[in-house]
Amino acid sequence: MTEAQDHLLDWLQDAHAMEEQAESMLLSMSLRLTHYPELKTKIDLHIDETRQQAMLLATCIERQGGATSAVKDTTGKLMASGQAFMNMFASDEVIKAGLASYAFEHLEIAAYSALIVAAEQAGDTDTQTICERILQQEVAMAAWLSHNLSGTTRKFMKLSGDPELIAKR
Amino acid sequence: MTEAQDHLLDWLQDAHAMEEQAESMLLSMSLRLTHYPELKTKIDLHIDETRQQAMLLATCIERQGGATSAVKDTTGKLMASGQAFMNMFASDEVIKAGLASYAFEHLEIAAYSALIVAAEQAGDTDTQTICERILQQEVAMAAWLSHNLSGTTRKFMKLSGDPELIAKR
Repeated sequence: MTEAQDHLLDWLQDAHAMEEQAESMLLSMSLRLTHYPELKTKIDLHIDETRQQAMLLATCIERQGGATSAVKDTTGKLMASGQAFMNMFASDEVIKAGLASYAFEHLEIAAYSALIVAAEQAGDTDTQTICERILQQEVAMAAWLSHNLSGTTRKFMKLSGDPELIAKR
Repeated sequence: MTEAQDHLLDWLQDAHAMEEQAESMLLSMSLRLTHYPELKTKIDLHIDETRQQAMLLATCIERQGGATSAVKDTTGKLMASGQAFMNMFASDEVIKAGLASYAFEHLEIAAYSALIVAAEQAGDTDTQTICERILQQEVAMAAWLSHNLSGTTRKFMKLSGDPELIAKR
């Protein structure tokens, strides 16, 4: 195994763990959302995408001779970060969850950008193509969240003036 | 104090804590970087910007009658998230630190986007102007990191083939 293939496998396993974290976080966010139906619908659609991405990554890991169950030091760090993100995702306040999901999308965008370079250097064109496709999905999700944030903030500010409802989520 | 002013103060305090976290994380990243001088220089410049941003936020917090030392539940969550980011920033591997800094920039971008709406609704035009200025700095830093990532990844892959040096950082 070359140095490039070694890094590629390492990062693919990190990305797989990252997508599993993403699924848990998005599920906890979706379950709590009440007054923001458009956001909830989009999050639910992205949960499906996230599951498919994890399956695609598993095929890439197998092609490189690795296993999705491998847990490394860096993955542990990523998981700890995910756990902290989870606290923000599960926040009572839709805005905090929105910030966390937007930041996490960019963690994913950067991870796939690095993976594309690693796959190219390792000569694994199938993995490169898959990562390019996943990257497009993450970029689209990040753009939607960015576009949605101002409207959600305005609605949050408006709803929180109404004592009749739990406006925060 | 109106509901809007209440949220504005709350989020300004979160943003101040976030910038203090950012300073620690960027410092730890800069100290470890050896083979990536351009990245190190940019990180150091952004440390200065980050300190100025924290000072500007303190003036906004005072204008709203609050204190920068106030620690709330949500700030605690943000700090825990920052701590987890810190582990990635302090990673031996420049790429992990790069992903974390890129994601953290987007946490900041989303936070200032929400703050601009909150300041507008609370009628605090000075805070709105300051947050718009800080947002531009964060967007510029995120764009630089994004542009830099492919090159850093290529260099990392190349250097890690050399047994003579610790190529990772």
